[in-house]
Amino acid sequence: MRIDVVTIFPEYLEPLNVSLVGKARAAGTLDVHVHDLRGWALDRHNTVDDTPYGGGPGMVMMTGPWGEALDTTLADGYEAGAAQPVLVVPTPSGRPFTQALAVQLAQRPWLVFAPARYEGIDSRVTAEYATRLPVVEVSIGDYVLAGGEAAVLVVTEAVARLLPGVLGNARSHADDSFAPGEMADLLEGPVYTKPPRWRGRGIPDVLLSGHHGRIARWRRDEAFRRTAALRPDLIERADPAAFDKKDREMLSILGWQPGPDGRFGRNPDAVEE
Amino acid sequence: MRIDVVTIFPEYLEPLNVSLVGKARAAGTLDVHVHDLRGWALDRHNTVDDTPYGGGPGMVMMTGPWGEALDTTLADGYEAGAAQPVLVVPTPSGRPFTQALAVQLAQRPWLVFAPARYEGIDSRVTAEYATRLPVVEVSIGDYVLAGGEAAVLVVTEAVARLLPGVLGNARSHADDSFAPGEMADLLEGPVYTKPPRWRGRGIPDVLLSGHHGRIARWRRDEAFRRTAALRPDLIERADPAAFDKKDREMLSILGWQPGPDGRFGRNPDAVEE
Repeated sequence: MRIDVVTIFPEYLEPLNVSLVGKARAAGTLDVHVHDLRGWALDRHNTVDDTPYGGGPGMVMMTGPWGEALDTTLADGYEAGAAQPVLVVPTPSGRPFTQALAVQLAQRPWLVFAPARYEGIDSRVTAEYATRLPVVEVSIGDYVLAGGEAAVLVVTEAVARLLPGVLGNARSHADDSFAPGEMADLLEGPVYTKPPRWRGRGIPDVLLSGHHGRIARWRRDEAFRRTAALRPDLIERADPAAFDKKDREMLSILGWQPGPDGRFGRNPDAVEE
Repeated sequence: MRIDVVTIFPEYLEPLNVSLVGKARAAGTLDVHVHDLRGWALDRHNTVDDTPYGGGPGMVMMTGPWGEALDTTLADGYEAGAAQPVLVVPTPSGRPFTQALAVQLAQRPWLVFAPARYEGIDSRVTAEYATRLPVVEVSIGDYVLAGGEAAVLVVTEAVARLLPGVLGNARSHADDSFAPGEMADLLEGPVYTKPPRWRGRGIPDVLLSGHHGRIARWRRDEAFRRTAALRPDLIERADPAAFDKKDREMLSILGWQPGPDGRFGRNPDAVEE
């Protein structure tokens, strides 16, 4: 996969040399190019922003430098043999970035990131490039950052770990929170490793039982417990066909019951366990 | 504000020297300390992880190194005069990180971050420290990362920009998507800056009208349009008391109507505009 990032803070992208993404680059799985937007500024002050039309606080990133930067970056990539680019624009006004979107992006051969700073990029830039390639405006969460660079790190890391050969143990995908598989849409419960006692704290006996079925059940019960407490929205959204008899018992203990459409909701009369 | 980060990838935190966070450090508003967890490993191989009790793929971070690291980090901070620490643990199993949580964390004088790698940190570590200080396990979104370091960058940036004196223009907060204020809970619509034409594309006439009321109305209509398309959940959750007559007209045009409780929902019979 080829990745281009156009930014006014190239040094913010240093983590792309580290850990999983760094290793994927070293292995040739990822080909990452970071470009300084100011190299395409149109004046000698390297200006890339100006005041918003219609007034108001903050600055808006200008069409000119972004147009030149994206034209050059796309032309260079095509010349190097890359194809089917997707323009990814991190912005709080975007669609939510989810694991499902990470899976989709991981299937593309070339991602071009345009992280905005200030009040955003002049909207004509995405309008223009949307006539030439898919443009995905994404928000990594409901909070405000100083710019899109942190989101580039997040999206790149989420995508890179899905590329073939990047994670050592292929099974690790399946059990992740939010990944398709047995624990899909449930938060993972507690985990433990040696030693068996630490500062007076032991581990649940079941984990030493060697009984795979009981361990799996305990993990799933703990996942329901944690999800019900912190992310009831995940249980409300879940397809109830994914819940077996024991799941339903656990949900009932936790104060949940199926509604008319079969989906589970919290029983308002239930006493919290 | 003091920030400590304990990590096996200290170099991943380089962006904390850049841009807004870097400037806040230079100005003395933020005092950031990054520590290498492996410095507290208990063997000469610098091991920090082991296989999970109960079996399964992946590795779990051990109690020993984390306990030593957090004890030392907390003791050093207290000795330097820091107080009231909060332990922030980024994990996909945490509560969602939101702007409201960023506002809360920005009011604390000291954040200690414990970003996990692999399958997570042995759960006895958070249980132990929760007896001594507030522990907040946070998830920055519904996707899977290789580790919590990117989340540390996200949380730190979201918090740092809320600290007094960090953003040059105090008004910039109020209009952000997800920030309290006029546009609260609506995505921001398109933005434009000079020149008035670029590659054959103009800007909406209203923005040149000089009529503040009409410009504000246009921006709010565009915000409703974008929010309805990309984040209907924000409109469904919104307190309808925040909607004025023109808001209600716009929602009606977009196919939304108030339900029995006054909150707006999409009208299933509406024709998309």
